[in-house]
Amino acid sequence: MTKSLRVGVVGAGAMGADHIDRINNRTSGAFVSAIVEPDAGRTAKAAENAPGAQTFAKIEDAIAADAVDAVLIAVPGQFHEPVLIPALEAGLPILCEKPLTPDSESSLRIVELEQKLDKPHIQVGFMRRFDPEYNELRKLVAAKDAGELLMLHAVHRNPTVGENYHQSMLITDSVVHEFDVIPWLAESRVVNVEVRYPKTSSLSHSGLKEPIIVLMELENGVLVDVEMNVNVQFGYQVTTEAVFEQGLARIGQPAGIQRWSAGQFSVKDHEDFTTRFATAYDRQIQSWVNAVHDGTLVAGPNAWDGYLVALSCEAGVKALEEGGIIPVEAEPRPDFYA
Amino acid sequence: MTKSLRVGVVGAGAMGADHIDRINNRTSGAFVSAIVEPDAGRTAKAAENAPGAQTFAKIEDAIAADAVDAVLIAVPGQFHEPVLIPALEAGLPILCEKPLTPDSESSLRIVELEQKLDKPHIQVGFMRRFDPEYNELRKLVAAKDAGELLMLHAVHRNPTVGENYHQSMLITDSVVHEFDVIPWLAESRVVNVEVRYPKTSSLSHSGLKEPIIVLMELENGVLVDVEMNVNVQFGYQVTTEAVFEQGLARIGQPAGIQRWSAGQFSVKDHEDFTTRFATAYDRQIQSWVNAVHDGTLVAGPNAWDGYLVALSCEAGVKALEEGGIIPVEAEPRPDFYA
Amino acid sequence: MTKSLRVGVVGAGAMGADHIDRINNRTSGAFVSAIVEPDAGRTAKAAENAPGAQTFAKIEDAIAADAVDAVLIAVPGQFHEPVLIPALEAGLPILCEKPLTPDSESSLRIVELEQKLDKPHIQVGFMRRFDPEYNELRKLVAAKDAGELLMLHAVHRNPTVGENYHQSMLITDSVVHEFDVIPWLAESRVVNVEVRYPKTSSLSHSGLKEPIIVLMELENGVLVDVEMNVNVQFGYQVTTEAVFEQGLARIGQPAGIQRWSAGQFSVKDHEDFTTRFATAYDRQIQSWVNAVHDGTLVAGPNAWDGYLVALSCEAGVKALEEGGIIPVEAEPRPDFYA
Amino acid sequence: MTKSLRVGVVGAGAMGADHIDRINNRTSGAFVSAIVEPDAGRTAKAAENAPGAQTFAKIEDAIAADAVDAVLIAVPGQFHEPVLIPALEAGLPILCEKPLTPDSESSLRIVELEQKLDKPHIQVGFMRRFDPEYNELRKLVAAKDAGELLMLHAVHRNPTVGENYHQSMLITDSVVHEFDVIPWLAESRVVNVEVRYPKTSSLSHSGLKEPIIVLMELENGVLVDVEMNVNVQFGYQVTTEAVFEQGLARIGQPAGIQRWSAGQFSVKDHEDFTTRFATAYDRQIQSWVNAVHDGTLVAGPNAWDGYLVALSCEAGVKALEEGGIIPVEAEPRPDFYA
Repeated sequence: MTKSLRVGVVGAGAMGADHIDRINNRTSGAFVSAIVEPDAGRTAKAAENAPGAQTFAKIEDAIAADAVDAVLIAVPGQFHEPVLIPALEAGLPILCEKPLTPDSESSLRIVELEQKLDKPHIQVGFMRRFDPEYNELRKLVAAKDAGELLMLHAVHRNPTVGENYHQSMLITDSVVHEFDVIPWLAESRVVNVEVRYPKTSSLSHSGLKEPIIVLMELENGVLVDVEMNVNVQFGYQVTTEAVFEQGLARIGQPAGIQRWSAGQFSVKDHEDFTTRFATAYDRQIQSWVNAVHDGTLVAGPNAWDGYLVALSCEAGVKALEEGGIIPVEAEPRPDFYA
Repeated sequence: MTKSLRVGVVGAGAMGADHIDRINNRTSGAFVSAIVEPDAGRTAKAAENAPGAQTFAKIEDAIAADAVDAVLIAVPGQFHEPVLIPALEAGLPILCEKPLTPDSESSLRIVELEQKLDKPHIQVGFMRRFDPEYNELRKLVAAKDAGELLMLHAVHRNPTVGENYHQSMLITDSVVHEFDVIPWLAESRVVNVEVRYPKTSSLSHSGLKEPIIVLMELENGVLVDVEMNVNVQFGYQVTTEAVFEQGLARIGQPAGIQRWSAGQFSVKDHEDFTTRFATAYDRQIQSWVNAVHDGTLVAGPNAWDGYLVALSCEAGVKALEEGGIIPVEAEPRPDFYA
Repeated sequence: MTKSLRVGVVGAGAMGADHIDRINNRTSGAFVSAIVEPDAGRTAKAAENAPGAQTFAKIEDAIAADAVDAVLIAVPGQFHEPVLIPALEAGLPILCEKPLTPDSESSLRIVELEQKLDKPHIQVGFMRRFDPEYNELRKLVAAKDAGELLMLHAVHRNPTVGENYHQSMLITDSVVHEFDVIPWLAESRVVNVEVRYPKTSSLSHSGLKEPIIVLMELENGVLVDVEMNVNVQFGYQVTTEAVFEQGLARIGQPAGIQRWSAGQFSVKDHEDFTTRFATAYDRQIQSWVNAVHDGTLVAGPNAWDGYLVALSCEAGVKALEEGGIIPVEAEPRPDFYA
Repeated sequence: MTKSLRVGVVGAGAMGADHIDRINNRTSGAFVSAIVEPDAGRTAKAAENAPGAQTFAKIEDAIAADAVDAVLIAVPGQFHEPVLIPALEAGLPILCEKPLTPDSESSLRIVELEQKLDKPHIQVGFMRRFDPEYNELRKLVAAKDAGELLMLHAVHRNPTVGENYHQSMLITDSVVHEFDVIPWLAESRVVNVEVRYPKTSSLSHSGLKEPIIVLMELENGVLVDVEMNVNVQFGYQVTTEAVFEQGLARIGQPAGIQRWSAGQFSVKDHEDFTTRFATAYDRQIQSWVNAVHDGTLVAGPNAWDGYLVALSCEAGVKALEEGGIIPVEAEPRPDFYA
C-alpha cells in the first residue's frame, strides 16, 4: 500500500471545510495532516472533522514543521500569492482554488517563479474540467463525428447572490469558469470579448446591472455566447450547447427522478454548485492525489491556464464597462507548460 | 365543388354539441342540417350554434323529412340500437359514438341487420385510431424494424370521475378504448382477460375499488397490461409503451412548452380527453365525411369491431368480479366485414 | 349555413398548391373558386385538385369576372405589389404570403393605398403567430407570472438550402420570421440589429458565410439572440427560449413518439417547415376565412407589421454586410392600424 | 487519522477485481490486505492491482494469519456458505455479494449462526439500495406527500445473456434484485408471486422463454409488476415507476449528454450494470467501511433480508414453472434483526 499523502489545507472557511471532508472521507490515498488558518474559531471547528490534523496560523510554519506533502489552497483569491510563493519555494505540489491570482500581472509572477522548478507544481481548481458531461462533450468536439464545432451557447444561472457581489464579479467570479473551460473544450484560446446588456432584472440588488450576454471569439473562429444571470430565483443551471456542422450536443440538463403531480411532469433542477458539481469536485481531488503519487503533480488546469484566464477576465471587465469588442493578448506559452 | 354533406346529429348533450361545433366550424365538405333530440332546452341551445339546422324529436322524423344525408349518433350507449335500426333501414351512413351497443347480443343483432345492405354503413367512434401517435406506433409494429412486438404496457389515468361512475364502468367505459385500439395496433384479437387489484386509492368514492391492472392476451401471444386509474387528481394520461424484440416505443408523453421555475423543469400534462385527443376527434370526422363523399362510407372501426369490443368488455367485467383468466370467444368474422 | 367564401389563389407553385389543398380539404366555410397563374402547366395541375375552380392568367381578369370574394397571394415577394394594388382597389380581403413586399419603400406605398379603404384588408402570412406554442409563450410573457421578460434565445436551423440561396437571404428569407414574431411575442418593436459570425460551416455552398448570430434589441430593453443556420443536415428546428426574471420557458422542442433502440433514447425532429408548422398554416387560413365572414377581415399581422419587418430586414442586411449595431427607425404608426 | 481497514477479498473473478479496484482507488479508510482465491492465475492478476496484499487459497488461512479486519465475499452464490461460516466464527464483519446463499434453507442456517454473535455482522450486496435515485424514491414513498403508494411498474432489461443463463435464473439472478429493493422501497414484504408470459423473443437462445412479467403483491396491498427481459439488444435499463394516489415518480430514465443528429434528438442509455450502478457500488462499499469503523458493522440489507429474498425466489421459480399465484411464507423476524 502506497503511503497516504499528507495534505495541508490552507483556509478553513466553507470551501476549505468541504475539501477537508472530501479528502478525509471520500478520497483514497490522502488525509488532512494540517489546517492552516489564522482564525482560531474556524480552526477549532475544522479540526473536529480532521482528527489528528495539526493546526498552523501560517503556511510557512506548516512547511517548517514538515507537516505536509502537498498543499490545497482554499482562501480567497487575493490571498493566494503569499501562500503560493512559500509552497513553490518548498517544492510542494499545490492545488490552488480558482482564480490563480486576481490579475494577470501577479499570475505572470507566479508562472515565472514556478518555472524555476523542474516541472509544473500548481493545479488550479477549475473543477468543471472534471465534470463527466464536460468531458464527454470535449471528446465529441475532438472526434469531429458531427463535423467541426461552429459555436457554443453557454448559460450560467444562479438563484441569487449576496449584497457584496458587485458588477465586475459577473466576470471575475462567474464567467471566469467559462474562460477556463471553453478554451479547454474547444481547444482554442479566447481572442476577444464583448458584453451586451438585456433588460435588467428587477430582482438584482441595487447597483447590479444583469443579466449580461458575454460573447467570446476563439482563435479557431468558434463564437461563444454566455448568458450570465445571477438572480434567477428558480434554480442553479450551468449548461452548454455545442453546435457542430452536422449536429448538436447539450450538457447540464436537469436529470434524476421524474415526477408527475398537479397536471405537470417535472424534474428537479440543481439548487447550487455543490450538487451540480459534486462528482467534479470529488474527481478533481482524487485525480490530483493520484497525480502527486505518480509524480505527474498536475492533472488539470495549470498555472499558465490560470494566467490566460486572468487575461480574459481583464478583457471581460473592460467590455462590461466600456462596450465594444475587447481583444485578449497573451504572452507566448513557454515550453515549460507545453 | 362537391355538394356539402348534410349531417344529422342525434343527441345534443356535451358530446353532441362538440360534434356540431366540429362539423360546422372545422370540417370541410359537411354541415349540420338536423339536430335530433327530445329535450327542447338542449335542442334550442344546440340550434344556436347550428344556424339553419332543422330540429326533430326522433330520428324517424328527420329521415321522413329527407333532412339528412348521414347520421352521427351521440346519445348514451343504451339508446344506440333504436337509432341505429331506422338509420340502417334508411340506408344512411352512420358514425356511432362508442360503444356500438352495451352488450354483445345487441351488437350481434346490429351486425346482422347491417349485412342486409350492400356494404358496411356504420363507423364506431373509437377515435384513438385517428390519433397521430397511435398511427405512428401502428406503423412501427407493422414494419417490424425493431423485431416482433412482444408486449404492451398501457396506462389510462383520469383526474377524477363522478359519483355515478360504478365499478364495472372501469371496463365498459374506460378500458373499452383499449379493447378496440390494442387489437388494431397489434393486429390480433383479444383471447383472454385477467384483472388484478393494487392497493385501493382512498380518493375513490365509496364503493369504487380501483386502480386495477387489466392483463389481456392477444391471439398472437402479445401480452398487454393496462393500468386503469380514475382518480389520480394530477392530470389526464393515456400512454402506451410497446416492447419489441430489439427496441421500445412510447406514445402519449407530455409535450409542448417547457418551463423552469422554482427549481423545477416542467411540462404541462393534459387535463382531459378533449385536449389529448382534439386532433383525433377532428380527423375522425373529416375522414368519415370524406369516406361518405367517396362512397367508402366507413373509414375506421366498423360494427364488427364494435361487437368484438362488447365481447371483451363482458370478459373484463367477469374478470373484475370473479378473478382468474377469462376467455373471450367470438363468432367467426363474416366476409362482409373482411 | 353561411355562404361559402370564394377564394382566388394567386400563384400555383408549391406554396399555392398547398393552400389550395388546405382550403378545399381542411377548411370550413371556404373553397377555391379561381386559380390565377400565367403558367398553363401549373394551372392545369392545380386545377385537378380544385374541381370547379375557374382559371385566369391575371388577377384583374378574375376580379372583372366577379370570380372571387377574397384573394390569397402565393407568388414570390417581388410580384406581390402588382397583385396587391388591383385587389385593394377592388376592396377585396387579402391574405398575402410573407413578405408584404421586398423593401420598406414599396411596403409603405401599400399601406398608404390601403388607408383609402375603411379598414385594413391585408393579412400577411407570418404563420408562426398561429402556432399553438408561440401563442402559449406569448400568454406567459403577458401574464408576467415569472416576472418581466429579459431576453430571448432563438434558433432557426434548416437541413439545407438551395444553390440560389444567397447571403442576404439569411436575413430576408429566414430571420424575417423572427422580425415579425418576436416583436409580437414581446410586445415591443425592434430598435437595432447586430450580426456576429461564428466559424463558417464547410457544408455551406461556396459564397455563403453562415451560420450567423443575429442580436436584436427591442424598445423595451429585451435582448434577442438568433442562431440562423441553414445547412445543419440533421433536421429542422425553430425554437425559442424565453428568460424571465424568475423562470424560463422553451418552445419548439422535439416531441412525439419516443423510441429506444441501439442503446439510445430518441425522438424524431422535424424535417422541414411543413410538419413543424402544419397546425399553424391550417389555423392561419381558418382564422382568416372566419375573419372575412365576420367582417373583421384581418386576424393576424397586418400591412403595417409587414412594413416594420421590411425595415428590420434592411437593417439586418446592413449589419450582415457592414458590422456594428444598426438602428431601425420607423414612421409613426397611423391610427388606421392601431 | 483512523487506522485503515484491512479488507480480505474472497474471489478474484470480474466482480472481485472490480471491488479490489474500488477499495484501493476510490474508498477512504480501507485497503485490500488479502486476496483469497484458489486459482493461481487469477490471484496473480488481481495481486498486480493490489500492491502489498497477501494471497491465500482459503479464507481460513487468511484468518489464521490475522491478515484481515473484514471480509468481502465475491465468489458465486453456491460457494458463499463455506466462506460465511468461518468468517462468522471469527467474528469478522462481512460484505457478502448477493445472494446470501442460493436457497432459503441454507440462508436460515446462516442467520441462526449469526445470532450467536452480539449483533448482525453480514451485509448482503444488494447495491441498488445505495443508488441515489432509489433512495430519493424511497423518501417520496415515506413522505406520502402524493398520498399512499398504490403500485409499482418495474422494468429490468439486459442487452443479452450468455448461453449458460437458464430459465430459473430469470428469477434467481435477475428478479432477485427486485425482491430485495422493492420491499425496502415500499416498506412491506412480498406475500405472493405470479408469472405471466408475453410473446417469446426470437432472440433468446434456445430453451429460454422470455421476457416474463412477474407480479408481486406486498403485505400492504401494493401490487408490483416487473418486466424481466434479458435479450433486448438495445441497452441496459433498470427503471421503476411509482404510482401514488395523487402523483407519479419515475427513476432510472436515460440522462446525460443530449444529442441531435440525423433528424433525431437522442440520449445514450446504459450499456450494462457497471455504469448504471457505478455510484451505488462505490457508496455501498464506502458506507460499509464506515459502518465497520464506527462499530455498526452493517449499513444495508442484512442476512435476514437475504433469507427473505431466498424465499421470494423460491416462490418465483415455482410461479415460473407451474403458473398461478404462489404465496411467500416467512418465519417471524427475530428481534436480533429488528
